[in-house]
Amino acid sequence: MDPTLGNMASCQLALLLLLLGSMSAPSSPPAGLLGRVFQYIDLHQDEFVQTLREWVAVESDSIQPVPRLREELFTMMSLAAEELRRLGASVDVVDSGSQKLPGGQTLPIPPVILAELGNDPKKATVCFYGHLDVQPARQEDGWLTDPYTLTEVDGKLYGRGATDNKGPVLAWINAVSTFRALEEDLPVNLKFIMEGMEEAGSLALEELVRREKNRFFSSVDYIVISDNLWISQRKPALVYGMRGNSYFTVEVKCRDQDFHSGTFGGILNEPMADLVALLGGLVDASGHILVPGIYDHVAPLTEEEQKMYEAIDLDLEEYRNSSQVKRFLFDTKEEILMHLWRYPSLSIHGIEGAFDEPGAKTVIPGRVTGKFSIRLVPHMNTSVVEKQVERHLEYIFSKRNSSNKMAVSMTLGLLPWTANITDNQYLAAKKAIKTVFGTEPDMIQDGSTIPIARIFQDIIQKSVLMLPLGAVDDGEHAQNEKINRWNYIEGSKLFAAFFLEVAQLHINDRNSPA
Amino acid sequence: MDPTLGNMASCQLALLLLLLGSMSAPSSPPAGLLGRVFQYIDLHQDEFVQTLREWVAVESDSIQPVPRLREELFTMMSLAAEELRRLGASVDVVDSGSQKLPGGQTLPIPPVILAELGNDPKKATVCFYGHLDVQPARQEDGWLTDPYTLTEVDGKLYGRGATDNKGPVLAWINAVSTFRALEEDLPVNLKFIMEGMEEAGSLALEELVRREKNRFFSSVDYIVISDNLWISQRKPALVYGMRGNSYFTVEVKCRDQDFHSGTFGGILNEPMADLVALLGGLVDASGHILVPGIYDHVAPLTEEEQKMYEAIDLDLEEYRNSSQVKRFLFDTKEEILMHLWRYPSLSIHGIEGAFDEPGAKTVIPGRVTGKFSIRLVPHMNTSVVEKQVERHLEYIFSKRNSSNKMAVSMTLGLLPWTANITDNQYLAAKKAIKTVFGTEPDMIQDGSTIPIARIFQDIIQKSVLMLPLGAVDDGEHAQNEKINRWNYIEGSKLFAAFFLEVAQLHINDRNSPA
Repeated sequence: MDPTLGNMASCQLALLLLLLGSMSAPSSPPAGLLGRVFQYIDLHQDEFVQTLREWVAVESDSIQPVPRLREELFTMMSLAAEELRRLGASVDVVDSGSQKLPGGQTLPIPPVILAELGNDPKKATVCFYGHLDVQPARQEDGWLTDPYTLTEVDGKLYGRGATDNKGPVLAWINAVSTFRALEEDLPVNLKFIMEGMEEAGSLALEELVRREKNRFFSSVDYIVISDNLWISQRKPALVYGMRGNSYFTVEVKCRDQDFHSGTFGGILNEPMADLVALLGGLVDASGHILVPGIYDHVAPLTEEEQKMYEAIDLDLEEYRNSSQVKRFLFDTKEEILMHLWRYPSLSIHGIEGAFDEPGAKTVIPGRVTGKFSIRLVPHMNTSVVEKQVERHLEYIFSKRNSSNKMAVSMTLGLLPWTANITDNQYLAAKKAIKTVFGTEPDMIQDGSTIPIARIFQDIIQKSVLMLPLGAVDDGEHAQNEKINRWNYIEGSKLFAAFFLEVAQLHINDRNSPA
Repeated sequence: MDPTLGNMASCQLALLLLLLGSMSAPSSPPAGLLGRVFQYIDLHQDEFVQTLREWVAVESDSIQPVPRLREELFTMMSLAAEELRRLGASVDVVDSGSQKLPGGQTLPIPPVILAELGNDPKKATVCFYGHLDVQPARQEDGWLTDPYTLTEVDGKLYGRGATDNKGPVLAWINAVSTFRALEEDLPVNLKFIMEGMEEAGSLALEELVRREKNRFFSSVDYIVISDNLWISQRKPALVYGMRGNSYFTVEVKCRDQDFHSGTFGGILNEPMADLVALLGGLVDASGHILVPGIYDHVAPLTEEEQKMYEAIDLDLEEYRNSSQVKRFLFDTKEEILMHLWRYPSLSIHGIEGAFDEPGAKTVIPGRVTGKFSIRLVPHMNTSVVEKQVERHLEYIFSKRNSSNKMAVSMTLGLLPWTANITDNQYLAAKKAIKTVFGTEPDMIQDGSTIPIARIFQDIIQKSVLMLPLGAVDDGEHAQNEKINRWNYIEGSKLFAAFFLEVAQLHINDRNSPA
């Protein structure tokens, strides 16, 4: 094809997308291989969106422990394995055993996919981690569209899992498949690890990583995860730190059965009154956690760190508007970022066993379980936090002199993670971002938790890069989760550019004196 | 039939039931008409249980505002109308219009049944009120059997609505149908009013009663309600007072969508933290309501009243055991009864909009609604209580300086009710209890609320009798609700005996000088 003609077609498409408000113009379209890759991605974007639609249609909810949803998870893993085989990868679907629920029931854990494509010893080997499970979603919880039918409105692709994490996983696959479609040699060897239990705490994954340390992971040079969001609607970011998470349940039990509030109201230590007092003693109105000692191990703030926060380009007004929040707890950019990234936070998620439906039921719940979690930062320790929380709740409960039984349990304990931002892949990612988006990335942290980052770092001791694609307002875990078509398609290009950059840096490394 | 032979058969059956542990022997079996009535009821008890099974099978849940359940309610009302027609009653199925839900949706309200059987001006006219709707029930909430399949275990008939209120309604019908089957003249004229919205606050009923005051209700002398429980497992009771109820919702909203606790935890006034603080400020660990002024209008305790509490035969140990409660808030019988009957109580029922399922979801709910209610006693006033609660919650919320929005609403306001225990029908009921159970009843109050009692008293100004059939451990509104076969069958006899007693007193009244 005449390259001039090709560029013109590409320009027309870019202009069209600009008019549609779904894309900003890159500084100048790249030439050569990368130009052909980008053009292919632009021209095939509807096919890429269609595959995302097929993946979103699978209700791969790992949170609700019910057999029907586990079957959906198995279906999802099969779909992904098939997609990887189409790329030419050799795919290993690894059985992950089963999970015992608190009630004694057993549920199968969806398999983990280990796949590889290419094993040229001269090339770098990049392993991509992704997860295919999603958070629960029901239309009646406030979705404007069916959460499992990908629906495009104004360039936004709405659907559960669209941004967390099915869209980014497919963007990676789109990048690879573009090289294959163009019959171009892949710049790097690729490995894939894909799981279906991330939202539920990546059950059984750590064991697998340990087991595969000297086999599957032995040749891996770099690990890439794309499971975060930018801090802006338009400016890309790289993530170099994430908080951990300690998830707690606190059960208060009078008896298994509920009571009628007319027949028993007035003479009982009601479990809900106890639980509300317990949960009410966890955090004050300013967001300060009331558990004694909880801030003792938080790393002190350095001057250098303070400066990094000041350098971040965050439009507070835009951030507040896109979050639809009237007022945050803090007024400055630095305070807000520090309380999201480098200080712990405590959130109360809900109560199981109480009356939770519409209408007016006059019940005294007999047994209720409160759920809350604490996001952990360096250098907090899960077992210390567990003891502090237990002691604190026991103290509050003892003061009430209630005849009920209380039981506290830490059901998840995940450590925080920090990267070295001078790693090759951080440099490669910066260059790729410059190529695709014409800008330097925001260097950010993320207040949420991806257990696998810490597991990779600790066990196989390879560099982990967090390379997000989604915009700040994507609403992962919330109603009306979406990924912008622009982010999904430009993100596919970003991964392709990243392959080339990381290959280049790898060659430079090999050729430079040790 | 030879009456001696009849008595022998009856005795044998009684002995058999005694051996089965499901019946205690009455002092002596009555002779004549009542003897034949009791014998018929004993011999046909399996048929009566079968009808209860058919009624329990209808999921007539009025609490959850969904179209499917409304259809079930309509089915239930048709079943009841058919049963009354079989007795020979003339039945009027009165359309009740529709209900507008907070979300704007409209649902039909099940019709009210007005029926009558007999209009002899020389006889007393007794109107029986019953409701055919039930509280929600799902097996996964802790039912040992399917809640909508009546299941008999050790003489206990388990099923939603078995005791509240389908069993007692059918016991009344059983009593009437026995007179019909024996081709005996009914001692009284009978009227029936049956509704399907009691658990949801008897919507539209007050208006109907007002409308029918000078027509359907004009000839009514007495009204009987059997929608309470005894205070013992074996000793019958009469109820002369009930608490009212003010049901509140308090919504705290940041935005409609939920948040991810990693991405937003630490910088928000989280709605759950606000709500837990609001609910935690309502009642202390000793059950004392913290709303200022709430006890101001509670009637002072008189010496006479104190003595009535002392006279009640309550085995605290048995009561505690059958309730499966480790310890009550109070140690004496008098304190416990007073806090159930003559003092207000506040119960927190649950939270709508938070995470309420099994598992671990890391969500910050964006909008949550707490639900609680206050049981009212003489001489508390719903509109005063409404203002006191609003003011109190507004005060707590203002102290938190939260950027969220709070909205308080009293969704139900039902006044307490007290009867005159020297009324003819209380005397008739006492005699009938003596005949069937060989004992005096406990004279009790009930801490729960039956709106219609107050409505009848205020609007048509006729005497209301509360004549309960169920045992203290029936678990109305809770999981594993049941009615004992013994209570159901002896209760049917009790109603038959009551017809004769009330007819006798009525004749005496008419013959005595004014």
